[in-house]
Formats: sequence, structure tokens, C-alpha cells
Amino acid sequence: MQDLKKSYQNTTYKLGNHSPRNVAVLKEAFENVDANLESDIYGTGAIIEDFQAKIATTLGKEAAVFFPSGTMAQQIALRIWADKKQNPKIGYHPLSHLEIHEQDGLRELQHIEPILLCDADKLITLADIKALDASVSCVLLELPQREIGGQLPSFEELEEISHYCRENGIQLHLDGARLWEITPYYQKSTEEISALFDSVYVSFYKGLGGIAGAILAGDEDFVKEAKVWKRRYGGDLISLYPYILSADYYYDKRIGKMGHYYEAAKELAGRFNACSGVSTLPEVPVSNMFHVYFDESAEVIESILAKIHAETGVGCSGYLQVKPDGRCAFELSLGDAITEVPAEKLAQVFEQLGNMK
Amino acid sequence: MQDLKKSYQNTTYKLGNHSPRNVAVLKEAFENVDANLESDIYGTGAIIEDFQAKIATTLGKEAAVFFPSGTMAQQIALRIWADKKQNPKIGYHPLSHLEIHEQDGLRELQHIEPILLCDADKLITLADIKALDASVSCVLLELPQREIGGQLPSFEELEEISHYCRENGIQLHLDGARLWEITPYYQKSTEEISALFDSVYVSFYKGLGGIAGAILAGDEDFVKEAKVWKRRYGGDLISLYPYILSADYYYDKRIGKMGHYYEAAKELAGRFNACSGVSTLPEVPVSNMFHVYFDESAEVIESILAKIHAETGVGCSGYLQVKPDGRCAFELSLGDAITEVPAEKLAQVFEQLGNMK
Repeated sequence: MQDLKKSYQNTTYKLGNHSPRNVAVLKEAFENVDANLESDIYGTGAIIEDFQAKIATTLGKEAAVFFPSGTMAQQIALRIWADKKQNPKIGYHPLSHLEIHEQDGLRELQHIEPILLCDADKLITLADIKALDASVSCVLLELPQREIGGQLPSFEELEEISHYCRENGIQLHLDGARLWEITPYYQKSTEEISALFDSVYVSFYKGLGGIAGAILAGDEDFVKEAKVWKRRYGGDLISLYPYILSADYYYDKRIGKMGHYYEAAKELAGRFNACSGVSTLPEVPVSNMFHVYFDESAEVIESILAKIHAETGVGCSGYLQVKPDGRCAFELSLGDAITEVPAEKLAQVFEQLGNMK
Repeated sequence: MQDLKKSYQNTTYKLGNHSPRNVAVLKEAFENVDANLESDIYGTGAIIEDFQAKIATTLGKEAAVFFPSGTMAQQIALRIWADKKQNPKIGYHPLSHLEIHEQDGLRELQHIEPILLCDADKLITLADIKALDASVSCVLLELPQREIGGQLPSFEELEEISHYCRENGIQLHLDGARLWEITPYYQKSTEEISALFDSVYVSFYKGLGGIAGAILAGDEDFVKEAKVWKRRYGGDLISLYPYILSADYYYDKRIGKMGHYYEAAKELAGRFNACSGVSTLPEVPVSNMFHVYFDESAEVIESILAKIHAETGVGCSGYLQVKPDGRCAFELSLGDAITEVPAEKLAQVFEQLGNMK
């Protein structure tokens, strides 16, 4: 896999993401910031308070708190709801970030008992939640469900889920790591989507391309409690401004481009699907992301991709994930990078992919 | 107290700290960093690995891991030692950062039972630790003990404590938030001091004046486990380079100045002590820090300090803490700022303070 990674890194253009994750990201964000601007201090000061207010408004929530990471923000959200209901059981998807990427922090630090709501390759449905019989304090929904290519329920089903949870005393939390990216498909604002949830986490380094950082939003009491937990976790840094100012900068720079990224994803997925032995999940993307599946083994695809990288200068992926059924796949999230790939180079990529048999 | 704060903010010079905590701190650190330098990614990459290795070497430990905060780093250190000894009891000072500034994170997240080792106004002694009868898994020593003005035990007593703990199966952890700052008094290297401890936490924004961030160092197994906990806490950010590169920059810039800061502290404390009704704790500083106590009430001292600020342009403090005995005090940590105060202005400050009766 090292060869694939290396060949990817050596390409001039990339299909996915924005520019490379290097120090230029910070330099661009800070270029026009006044050097005399005072740091935030332990969660106070204009830099952090203004940005929290801005995102709270965008999400239609009473209040918001900036966190260094979504991992910290979401564990805390679930703990607050578990405490409120005096019930440590919460429901989420088996491939939730909390389940597979956090070294069991939720269980180890918060003693929460997750209930896995559905099969790993499916979306959570209203029926899955009804089957819980209101035995959980909270349900977490991730929109879009990243690990299955970024799939979404219909907005009508979301509304039904929200209604059911409210009627049955279940708190509903949104893992909105990619919330900005789904507004074009739903044709709803972030506020309209967030209105279905009691608490919302959003991220600033995925579709928006900031350096790092997250916001957790909800009502005043919820956010007040979240700030106490933020201090307990060691997330209440003396200065978070390197993340906050860059989050704000890239939010303003890219929030209006989510429709373009979504259209680019649909177009690119169509081109992958036109190649024999290649398919995307979902077949038609509902956000800026999708997974690209190959019917051949990772060994075969690795060398094909490495050759494409070398010959076209366009990077498809630096890795391949082997799936249980023997196929292999990689993830693509469309951003600014795709706009820089020359049309003839992109055509070469798909010509080679289409002729790989 | 708002008047005092405002008058302090309006002064041209300050007695304590370095330059103001504003965006210039970041801009200076990044001015000469190559924009093409690749970000660290979730704890990997040259930026983070090289800095961890550099500080591990400085501390004479096998390995080190960079954390966004000391709060996170220290809770994790104590949990690892508690697990190793299968004993949730750890001993520390009643005014430890963990006890008074972390919203009880250690108890809430780690279920550790702290044993307070001595009276709040005293230093922990070997006798205090012996009195535990080896009933704790770990003892945390903070050097210098910040909340009592930054006091230190003798190095000989430290050696005895270390020897006793090793003989009796007690892990010894160093809260070295201000470790760099005590090397001139002990006339020992950070490696010599750290050698007495099983694990060491150091900070990069106090004496060194970085933006934020901490390092936890120890043996390979300890650091490996700390990295798992770092992910659980949500401290394993995709990019920590804003803190790491600035920590490295200010480490190099200021590590050689600790002797100057220490000398400046001793001189300044002497001048405070020469004023009637004013005294410092400790009387003779053992690092760059000390507390300034006034025999009068906070109301009286507030207006005197505000007047000094307005008339001399030199800021002493923006706050006063009222003590149980009715006196009031503020903290001073000497850094680069003191070197910029003109001698005649400083003389005015002490002339006014000396004549306040």
C-alpha cells in the first residue's frame, strides 16, 4: 500500500478534498487578521463568543460552545442527555464515529451503554427506533452516514423520527460532522435540519477545510453543562483562536460552495459507475461524498491506481480498504481540488479506469 | 475590580509575563515556517513526532506525547498509574490544579480518589508521604507549588521523596507546568529533575509563552497507553501543529532565559518587600514567580494600584484575590515584559507603593 500512497502524494492534482493539509491553510486564514487581536482566554473573549453566537444562529439554537474536537463534543452531549434522563443507554449506528474511532472513550470515560440500532450496512430507520420501546435516553443520528458512503434518510423520515422521539421522551442528537454538505440535497437550511434535533455537533475541517475544531449547540442549559464538561476533559484551552479564526475564515469562504461540491460528486460518481467493475456507494451521491468500490482485489487495483497516478498526474486515492466480501474501496469527498483538475486529465483517468479489464 | 482591570489593560508596560496574548504570538511563530510543511495527522507526521522526541530527550524519558492541554495530560497520567497499581487512590496537594481548576474532571471521568497530602498553605513533605503508608498508587508533586506563590522543597528532600516512593511501590508524577522555570534555583537540568519522577507533564504557554499545549513524558509503555487515552478524550486532533510549532518556536526562543526571569523575580520581590505593608510569598522567589500580599483591604489596594497604573503607565496586576485573613494578593510571573519597563518608571511604581500609607 506504500506504493499507492507514494504515487498519490506525487500527483499534481487530486480528485478529493481541498488544498493539501499544510501550514498554508493556517497562513491563508491569518493573513488578514490583525496581530493586535486579543486571544480568547479559557472560553471567554470576543473571538470565541462571537463565533459561538454566529454558529448558534446558523443552527437556530439558543447557544453554542466551541470544542477542539468532535470526539469530545459528542461524548459530552450524550453524557448530558444520559444524566438528564438518568439512563446510560443511548442508541446509535454500529459504524458511528463513537463506536469505531474513539478507543471506546464513551464507555471508558462516560460509562454510557450504546445500543447499536441497525445492521452496519443500513441506515437507521424509524422502525429501528420504535423497536427500542423508549428504553434509551438519547438517539444519535449521523447525517450523512459516513461509513456507508454518506447515505441519508429522506427528510420526511427524519421528521417522523424527530416527532416520535419528542413524543416518547427520547433526546435526539445530530452528529453533523458533515451537516453543511447535505443542505443542497435536502434543499433545507442548517437551521431547518437542526430544528429536528435537541443538540447538534458540527465540524469545521471536513467540507469547510479548516484546521480542526467543532461546535456543539443546543439550549442554554445544555451548553452551560457542556462547558463544565469541556473543562473536565481538558478542552477549555487558554487559547483556541488558531482553530476558531481559521474555522470562521473557511466557513465564510466555503459555506456557499456546498452546492458545487454536491454537483461535482454526482457527476464524478456517474463517471466511476460508467466503468466496468467499478461502482459507487451511494450510486447517486446525496452530499459531496461517496465511496468507490472495485470488484477486483486490492492488489490488482493498487497497481492500476498507481499507474493512473503516474501517467495522468491526477490522484484518486492514497489507500484502499479491503471489504469483507473481497472487494476494495476508497472514500471521496469533493471540495475545491476537483475544480483544478484539467478536463483532459480527468478524461484520461476515466479512460484508463474504463479499460482496466 | 473592573476599574483595576481596565487601568491595567491601559498601561504601556507590564511587570509580569511576556508580550500580550494576542494573534501576534501566532504570527511571530509562523513567520518563517514553510507554508508547504505538511500538517501532523492524528498524532503522526514529522511535526509532532520530532517535537515529542526533542522534549523526551530534554526530559531524559523514553517517549513523550503532545497534548492540547495539561488538564487532559495529567488526568491521563494518574489514571494509567492507578490502573497499573489497581488502586484508584492518588495523593496530591490540596491546591493542585486537578483539585481546584478542573471541575472535578479527575473524579468524574476517571473515578480517581484524591488524598490531600498536607495543609493548603504548606509544601508536601516526605513525612506527609510516609504517613500514607503506601496506600496510594501515585503521588503528584507540583514544582513549584503555584498556588502558594511558587514554593519548592529542597532538591535533597525531592531525592528522598523519590527514593521513598520507589522503595514503596508508589509512582511519582511531576506536575511540571513550570518545570523550565525552576532549573536556575535548583541548578539542575530538566533531565536531572525529571529523573526523580516516573512521569512528567510540562507546559508551553507559561514561562515559555507559547499559545497552548503540553507534553506528557515517561517510558514507552506509559506513553503508548497515554496515546490511547488521548484519543478517548478527544485530544487526538487531526492537526495540532498550531500549538506544536509555536511551542517549539518559543521553547527555542526562551529556554535560555529562565535564569534572567529568576533573577528579575528575586530583584522585584526585594523591592516589593521594601515597601511597608507589602510582602511577597515566598519572601525570596525560587523561580520566576511569586505572590504579592498587601496588609490593607482589596478596596484600598485597588484604588492605589489603579492610580499607579494611570500615573506610571506600568501595570502591576489587573486583579486582586481576597485572602481568608482579609489581606489581598496578586500573582507575578516574570518574563520578557519586565525588561521593557524603563528603570525610572519602575522606580516611580515603588516610590508610590512605598508611600501609600
